[in-house]
Amino acid sequence: MPTIEKMSDSERLQEYVRSIMPPNRALAELAAEREFQLAKPRRTLGLLEDIAIQLSAIQNRLRPSHEHKLMVVCAGDHGVVEEGVSVYNKDVTYQQILNFEKNGGCITVLSENAGAKVILLDAGVDHDLPPHPRLVDAKIAKGTRNLAKGPAMTREQAVASVLAGAEVVLMEPYADLVAAGEMGIGNTTPSSCIAAALAGLSPADSAGRGAGLNDAQVLHKADVIARALEINKPDPDDALDVLAKVGGFEIGAMVGVYIGGAMRRAGLVIDGFIATAAAALAERLAPGIKSYMVAGHRSREKAHKALLDYLGLRPLLDLDMCLGEGSGAAVAMFICQCACEHFNKMKTLQEAAITDIE
Amino acid sequence: MPTIEKMSDSERLQEYVRSIMPPNRALAELAAEREFQLAKPRRTLGLLEDIAIQLSAIQNRLRPSHEHKLMVVCAGDHGVVEEGVSVYNKDVTYQQILNFEKNGGCITVLSENAGAKVILLDAGVDHDLPPHPRLVDAKIAKGTRNLAKGPAMTREQAVASVLAGAEVVLMEPYADLVAAGEMGIGNTTPSSCIAAALAGLSPADSAGRGAGLNDAQVLHKADVIARALEINKPDPDDALDVLAKVGGFEIGAMVGVYIGGAMRRAGLVIDGFIATAAAALAERLAPGIKSYMVAGHRSREKAHKALLDYLGLRPLLDLDMCLGEGSGAAVAMFICQCACEHFNKMKTLQEAAITDIE
Repeated sequence: MPTIEKMSDSERLQEYVRSIMPPNRALAELAAEREFQLAKPRRTLGLLEDIAIQLSAIQNRLRPSHEHKLMVVCAGDHGVVEEGVSVYNKDVTYQQILNFEKNGGCITVLSENAGAKVILLDAGVDHDLPPHPRLVDAKIAKGTRNLAKGPAMTREQAVASVLAGAEVVLMEPYADLVAAGEMGIGNTTPSSCIAAALAGLSPADSAGRGAGLNDAQVLHKADVIARALEINKPDPDDALDVLAKVGGFEIGAMVGVYIGGAMRRAGLVIDGFIATAAAALAERLAPGIKSYMVAGHRSREKAHKALLDYLGLRPLLDLDMCLGEGSGAAVAMFICQCACEHFNKMKTLQEAAITDIE
Repeated sequence: MPTIEKMSDSERLQEYVRSIMPPNRALAELAAEREFQLAKPRRTLGLLEDIAIQLSAIQNRLRPSHEHKLMVVCAGDHGVVEEGVSVYNKDVTYQQILNFEKNGGCITVLSENAGAKVILLDAGVDHDLPPHPRLVDAKIAKGTRNLAKGPAMTREQAVASVLAGAEVVLMEPYADLVAAGEMGIGNTTPSSCIAAALAGLSPADSAGRGAGLNDAQVLHKADVIARALEINKPDPDDALDVLAKVGGFEIGAMVGVYIGGAMRRAGLVIDGFIATAAAALAERLAPGIKSYMVAGHRSREKAHKALLDYLGLRPLLDLDMCLGEGSGAAVAMFICQCACEHFNKMKTLQEAAITDIE
């Protein structure tokens, strides 16, 4: 086997995927025992209990941590915007990145609020972004090609986008909870294509309103998705083929963030529709990685539920949000924090000298 | 009119209720305008937007605050426990208060995690609790009488319990978000009686599992509730009559916490079943106070949804929790924080130089 430096990108990615360990079941059992001893009636904290136990197993320790939270906001542009699938023009992608650099965006505000470090990852923005301390330049190309007319990118570019996301996470000194956010005008269209390819949705069922399409525009978007699937024929058994043909650079980077996070044994907090499309690709590429995932919220975007069902994930929050950027995951990170805190800091019935059920 | 010092308790409570102002609609409109200008597609933050606007109107300022969060954990014992309506014995009430004093309980851990100050209010614990810096002694009696055999307390005691809760909040220097938690073994039974009396539920529909009753025990509890309603005949148009006949000291104090919070123009974050029963009493006592309320979560306890519907409140969280103590409200306070933060700190489209929808 070549050393990791001499591997091809594709071999390196395979090696990363192979290195992901399953969560530690023995620790899940020990954690469940502790949970039962805490000074409260059993099973009264619902999902907070489940998440604490899951994070123990993921992080491989009996006191799960939320101290180091990481929000990697992956950005890229989309050739398919020329089909009129978005209410915004693509300049908004880079304009929002500049806004995020100044802490003016929703994801930067909510991440700071959640105590999460934000990294901005340019995987393929169609603009020359000046250097910034928060911005990692991993630009693969200035936007994808129009997936309604052919593949969005080459397979090599798909691999590169995943590696970019993974390696940002691998370079962090600590990572307890990791989320992938995104900024990429037009990126619900590739996400819908991915949902259609992996979860078997029809174009009509996979097309949603995105950032505010009306009914006629949604019908047009479904038509674009249908054309993309017809022309590209993505192979649902090959995540990299799906990503290359109907994905996006930032979506590939999000897949990589999940892979890097799972390698680091961090809990993966999944945002809404686009993040869940990336999560579905990650599960196809690295089967079992979904056991590292917590679904942060249920988005209003139409096909999100189908993707959650595909992964078998139950969303923590349902706040009628559909902004993307990672915003739902940023809020949900606090729910994970509550899970850790109650588990780590509550006294047991015995420690608290509480009379147990008679 | 007598000065407030010379008023009877009952007059003082009436004066408190009269002094509650409705939220400021003009500010709600201004806040909604700002919300529309923020650097995101409109209406993509769902309930976070609604809460920010609601809190602006409640707090009477254009930048709603979450800085001063207050969790008042009201405690009391219940004579009805002698009917066998709880899986725990009543000593657990005082044992948990001692545990809360040492930060070992769920509500103290989750409140600290949410940045909320905890006040423990003894409204009627059947135990001599030693003084503690966190504990306010407002003990009205050592537990209520058995409501299955007659009134739980006198009307004067009911008034005193409400005043105790209100005045704890009135004594705080600042209060932006206020929640009432509780500790009182047996207190789902009076809460079910209140739900039955106010929302018209049958005893069977109002009786839930509490801290872990089995099916047969739930049937017995429904029978106890039926007897309580039959013997006491609480007047649903008179909140103090309902509270006195089938309530509890800590439930009265929670009603008072809401009244005090609304007087202070704080957002009221409502916990689960018991807290919502108290909220329903508060709305009956002070019509319109529900506009100050945010329903923190939906509890697993059976009749909670009916009480939320009675108040017309949509719960923020649905995490399968049913612990009580205020735990769901403590988690939900963070959602209110996210609402404030995005609203106060995001840049507008113009400030961020983002091209608006074409």
